Amino acid sequence: MTASIPATHHGDLWAVVPAGGAGTRLWPLSRAGAPKFLHDLAGDGRTLLQATYDRLQPLVGERLLVVTGAAHQVAVRGQLAELPADQVIAEPSPRDSMAAIGLAAAIIERQDPDAVIGSFAADHVIADPEAFRACVTEAAAVARTGLLVTLGITPDSPSTGFGYIRLGERLDGFPTAHAVDSFVEKPDADTAQAYVDSGDYRWNAGMFVARASVVLDLLAENHPDLARDLRAIAAEPQQLDELWDGLTKIAIDHAIAEPAAAAGKVAVVPGSFGWEDIGDFEALTDLTPAQDSTREGTGIKVLGDAARVFAQQSSGLVVTGTERTIAVLGLENVVVVDTGDAVLVTTTEHAQDVKSIVEALKAAGRADLT
Amino acid sequence: MTASIPATHHGDLWAVVPAGGAGTRLWPLSRAGAPKFLHDLAGDGRTLLQATYDRLQPLVGERLLVVTGAAHQVAVRGQLAELPADQVIAEPSPRDSMAAIGLAAAIIERQDPDAVIGSFAADHVIADPEAFRACVTEAAAVARTGLLVTLGITPDSPSTGFGYIRLGERLDGFPTAHAVDSFVEKPDADTAQAYVDSGDYRWNAGMFVARASVVLDLLAENHPDLARDLRAIAAEPQQLDELWDGLTKIAIDHAIAEPAAAAGKVAVVPGSFGWEDIGDFEALTDLTPAQDSTREGTGIKVLGDAARVFAQQSSGLVVTGTERTIAVLGLENVVVVDTGDAVLVTTTEHAQDVKSIVEALKAAGRADLT
Repeated sequence: MTASIPATHHGDLWAVVPAGGAGTRLWPLSRAGAPKFLHDLAGDGRTLLQATYDRLQPLVGERLLVVTGAAHQVAVRGQLAELPADQVIAEPSPRDSMAAIGLAAAIIERQDPDAVIGSFAADHVIADPEAFRACVTEAAAVARTGLLVTLGITPDSPSTGFGYIRLGERLDGFPTAHAVDSFVEKPDADTAQAYVDSGDYRWNAGMFVARASVVLDLLAENHPDLARDLRAIAAEPQQLDELWDGLTKIAIDHAIAEPAAAAGKVAVVPGSFGWEDIGDFEALTDLTPAQDSTREGTGIKVLGDAARVFAQQSSGLVVTGTERTIAVLGLENVVVVDTGDAVLVTTTEHAQDVKSIVEALKAAGRADLT
Repeated sequence: MTASIPATHHGDLWAVVPAGGAGTRLWPLSRAGAPKFLHDLAGDGRTLLQATYDRLQPLVGERLLVVTGAAHQVAVRGQLAELPADQVIAEPSPRDSMAAIGLAAAIIERQDPDAVIGSFAADHVIADPEAFRACVTEAAAVARTGLLVTLGITPDSPSTGFGYIRLGERLDGFPTAHAVDSFVEKPDADTAQAYVDSGDYRWNAGMFVARASVVLDLLAENHPDLARDLRAIAAEPQQLDELWDGLTKIAIDHAIAEPAAAAGKVAVVPGSFGWEDIGDFEALTDLTPAQDSTREGTGIKVLGDAARVFAQQSSGLVVTGTERTIAVLGLENVVVVDTGDAVLVTTTEHAQDVKSIVEALKAAGRADLT
């Protein structure tokens, strides 16, 4: 597995890209067999995974590992043809983010214990990659001091869909970094508004930067078996299949970030770079640019071929996934997703409930569609 | 054309079925190339045309002529395989209802001048065929006295979508027939309510019963050229192509029914037999029975295969015209029509506006879809 890993200098920055999650709330666009990171949801000709690579490549060159489900390994390699094939690591089964990122950390640690890794999900959208890279560069510098560093997104709304990071003291010697006072769970609406009004909170986008050895040492303090098994797999890759399914299933936030924050070992670099996670069709509608259309009354956004969408007295989003013409008449905030084997019609207000359709399909024996 | 017309007794009742009209407000289900009468809109396994035949056959046996567009002649013959092929008459071009019904009347008149013809559109739905046939039977008896007879539907709502018939005096010697005082145009809502409250008005469903010779003689009084040309075509069918495109384009109501009513020559037989014209998706939604579904929260009606429709927190209608699964979430009174090359998403409230989508398609050079 390590044969073709690129030569590095001591302390270089590596990117780790966990590419998992079915994106159930984006069904039928996103499926278990074709999750959202494999799709061009931003409508710019690159899939979310490819855009993630594009965004990181100026920082890390070829020092990038993708960790994905076994079912998606071929698709990921196909989309990232420029990346050496053995830098796409297949998980035999989903074991949550700590196992995925921790395995990558362990592989990189064997090559360079001082390497700094940054973990960035494959399905985020970032409007300003330059600002993002500046933020990561500062985070890497902070990480070289031995801290676990997270990026904290400056909120542009009192979202109840994200956890928040409460800022602590400014860190001397860095332009913008703060200590992390604490991570807090997704708040209710009033609490979220209070967080935003205070100026002391940032969104937790789940992006971490740290030395590979710091990640694994923090893990060894909190979940020693998991740290040991991940280092064992990195040392002897043939142990992957034997050990993987027994690994503790836990998110990196709970496994190391929260305990380390309580111990004063976490920093945050605040950032404003137009981050979106496109978790559902409401977010996708917001993200999709309005049509420069001359057709009368068309307030519909289109992801795909706008020439095949005929809308009147309507607003919302149409996703064209087939050659079919789609006509929408008299519906506000509608979401229409046309694919080869399934059509979804809903509204942005019901974006969170799309997963219940997926559950209904499974319950009806139509898991083939999910 | 007359070779295989069935043997009749003097004064027999014939049915004339004009099968025209694209049903634009039912796009994309109904197309210029596949108008609504060719579809099973009632979901009972028979198309509207076939159901019309089924309903009339006990009254007229094989004494039935269909008049349709040249483009639909093959489809009509295919759907009515039991009918001799030359009883499906193709119009070279649409010349409105007077030409269509008048040509059939002229053909029948040549065989039996005393024959009574009843004209019934191919795209109506009638819930109680027995009651319908009883009504037609009385109308035929009245027609044998030389009157033009129309069926008047007892209104079940103050519809503004139909013209109305104002009842005159009762006719002696018949169970329910009245003279027609007048035909009135589609009313506004207040007027329609007053009509219904008065009890003196019936819906004009465009169904006429009269001797073939009465139809043509009334036409000769009002539009002598049209009557002459239709009788000429019936006498020499090879004149059809030469004369047809020059015929006056006029509806039978304006051509003969209204002038004859003013002259006291029209009767009406009132009827209540669950008549629907399914002019748009609101009517189709009303007509479609509710699903006997155990799936949670499913308030959606389905025309087609209900097993492929997954609806939650929704009401309205889904028409399944493909093998695809259709999911609807969080929309009231929605209409989703899935066909091979086009999908329509609208609401029952916008049912009348569907034709503007068809116009937009034509304007965009997509007449192939209409």
